[in-house]
This record gives sequence, structure tokens and C-alpha cells, in this order.
Amino acid sequence: MKEITQKLREFTAERDWDQFHSPKNLIMALSVEVAEIVEHFQWLTEEESYNLDSNKLEKIKEEIGDVIIYLVMLADKLGVDPIQAAKEKIEKNRKNYPEKIAIGKANKYKEL
Amino acid sequence: MKEITQKLREFTAERDWDQFHSPKNLIMALSVEVAEIVEHFQWLTEEESYNLDSNKLEKIKEEIGDVIIYLVMLADKLGVDPIQAAKEKIEKNRKNYPEKIAIGKANKYKEL
Amino acid sequence: MKEITQKLREFTAERDWDQFHSPKNLIMALSVEVAEIVEHFQWLTEEESYNLDSNKLEKIKEEIGDVIIYLVMLADKLGVDPIQAAKEKIEKNRKNYPEKIAIGKANKYKEL
Amino acid sequence: MKEITQKLREFTAERDWDQFHSPKNLIMALSVEVAEIVEHFQWLTEEESYNLDSNKLEKIKEEIGDVIIYLVMLADKLGVDPIQAAKEKIEKNRKNYPEKIAIGKANKYKEL
Repeated sequence: MKEITQKLREFTAERDWDQFHSPKNLIMALSVEVAEIVEHFQWLTEEESYNLDSNKLEKIKEEIGDVIIYLVMLADKLGVDPIQAAKEKIEKNRKNYPEKIAIGKANKYKEL
Repeated sequence: MKEITQKLREFTAERDWDQFHSPKNLIMALSVEVAEIVEHFQWLTEEESYNLDSNKLEKIKEEIGDVIIYLVMLADKLGVDPIQAAKEKIEKNRKNYPEKIAIGKANKYKEL
Repeated sequence: MKEITQKLREFTAERDWDQFHSPKNLIMALSVEVAEIVEHFQWLTEEESYNLDSNKLEKIKEEIGDVIIYLVMLADKLGVDPIQAAKEKIEKNRKNYPEKIAIGKANKYKEL
Repeated sequence: MKEITQKLREFTAERDWDQFHSPKNLIMALSVEVAEIVEHFQWLTEEESYNLDSNKLEKIKEEIGDVIIYLVMLADKLGVDPIQAAKEKIEKNRKNYPEKIAIGKANKYKEL
């Protein structure tokens, strides 16, 4: 992740694109990239979504790359470490959803 | 990232939540988490988006954690390494947007 | 639709909120409202999504109202008539997807 | 709006596409169409977003049409009248944000 952050700083500086990368703009771009993944799944059944053909999977992989790129640029601008943020959130979720209570609570889950 | 993938596999298995985590459902959840970040920025000017107060920044940090969580779960289900996907995409972008041509091309950028 | 446009102009003017309603901000707000509907559906199966309980349906109805509100405000700012835009798009789709060819083409549809 | 609802029912029936139009799928499609509008605005300043060239405006108009199309199909499946939903929401907002208190409360607005 740190390597990617560094690569993206260089990439942006070389092209003088930092002027476009306000946090407000970056979150918009991130939402657009995520929607490009949604587009691949919108007409598939859940079962089909587990069994993508290699052509579609390749395109989705590239868009997952785009999502990471904009997320890293946004987090970098805000001074947030995304991996650390995820770790802390997982710990918080562990407390909020104790496993003994959560197991098999499908209806509960649907209200999360 | 691998540590997070492992933690999330355990967290999900302990709660028997894997049944809800089809790729189709996970991308929907990912898009919702991204929108929760968009919500923090929607009425801010670009300039304000660079200067968040610490309370707002803390909430956004937590939501960045959520975005990583759903992105890692989605990528894991699809057998995609998100860091590798991002690296490959950065290389592709380097070829598609050569720096000599790209520098300062604001109008061009706006059409990307 | 015109009545709603008029009501929203008054509502906004009375509160001096027009200053926040740039097209850029309004499309962000619209995307957030749509995501609030996505949230209601993210863990449901397709079959469940046809059979919502009345409590959930009531919440979704309210959020559909929000989507119309931001869409109308955005269209008004841009000088676009959304009903006219929809009619023209339906005619265009009629030409692009002739029924004789489109019937039953499930796989084709999934690539739209 | 009713005319559009009727047109879309016919359009879908003629092509045997109703099988794909679960509420879950339709809200995904709606979110994708909204993101296509976001894409047009992501690198623009707020000021630029008020002054679109005619080419860009034409594309956005078409995508506003798409948003209406999927919103009407979703609402029709759920038995919701979107215009009525919007009217009720505006009345609710009138009560929640009384004008005397709301006027000029920029900071308040940013926390909505």
C-alpha cells in the first residue's frame, strides 16, 4: 500500500494533476469507479456473480485496481492510513457483533 | 492487506455470514460505504474539503475502513489481489497518459 | 413535475440554500440518496426484493421522494426537462433494441 | 409520469425483459446511471458545473432520462408513486427545517 501511495504521488506530480485532486473530487471519482463494478453485476443473479467468465473477471480486476488507486489518493490527501483504518474498524465490529449473538441471525443481518 | 483478508475470513466464518456475501451483494455494500463518504463532502467547497475538522475526519477514517473491508471481501471472493490489480493499472495508465503530453492539459483531463 | 419544481424553488429560496446547490453538489446529493435505497436491498435476495414488508417499503418510498427532489433540482439548474429527457431516451432505446431481435436475448441483455 | 410508466411497461413486455427487473437489480441499474452523471462533474469546479458546454449538457440530459427510466421502473415494481412520494417529502422537510431557523445557517446545512 505504501509503495502504491508513493507511485501515485509521482504519477500525479509528473503530470501536474494534483490541482484536480481535491478530496471532494477524489471521492466523486472513487464513487464512479465503484459504479463501474456495479454495472458488471447489475443483471446477474447472485449465483452467476460467483461464476464470472474470464473476460468479465479481467475487466472487474482492472476496475478494482482503479478503486484502490482513488481510495489511496483520497486517504493520502486526508492523512489517513487505509489499512490501519480497516484494522480498527474490524476490531470495532468484533465488539459490536459478538459472534455468539450474531451466528445465524439472518434477519438481524438484513437490518444492519 | 493479506492480514486483513485473513481477519475478515475468520470474522465472517465465526458469524456464519458467508451466506450473504455473494459478489453481487458485496459490490452493493461497497457502493453504499463509498456513498457515506460522499455524504460528508457533498455540501463542502473543494477548499473546505482540504480542511476537515477532526470530528469529521475521524468519521471519514472509519468509513475508509469500511470501504477497504468490503473491497477486500469482494476481491477475495473473486480471487483478485487488489494491490496487484492497482499496480498493473498504474502501469497501464503510465502508458496511456505519457507525462510529456499530459502535463498541464487541464481541459484534456476533464474529458478523461 | 412542474409543481414539484416550483415548490422546490420556493423551499430553497425561503431558506437561502441556493448557495449550496451547484450542479456538482446536487449530483453528489442525488448519488447519496440513491445509495440509501441500495442499502435497503443489499442483503436481500432478488426474490425478497419483490416482497418488502410495509415498514421497509415506507422508508424506501420516502427515499424515492428524496431522489426525485434532488433530480428535479439538478435538472432545473441545468435547464433540462426530465420527463422530456426520459421520453426521448425511450424512443432512442426503441431504435437501438428492436423487439424482434431483443426478445429472450438474456445473454445479450447481460452485456448491455 | 404515468405516460412514461405505461411506455416502459410496454417496452419491457415487448422484449421479455421483465425477468431481469427485480427491484434489487433495478436499484443497481439506477445507481449506475447516476454515477454516469457524477462522472461528467467529477473534475469540474462548482463554478464550471454551472456553465456546461452544449455537447456535455446533451449527454447529461440523456443520462437524466436514464435515471427517470430506472426510477420509474423501480417505483412501478414497488407500487410507489414517485411524484406523490416527493410531495410528501417536501412537506416533511418544511416541518423539519422551518425557514426562520434555517435561513443562512450554512454550517448547519453542512451537517444535514
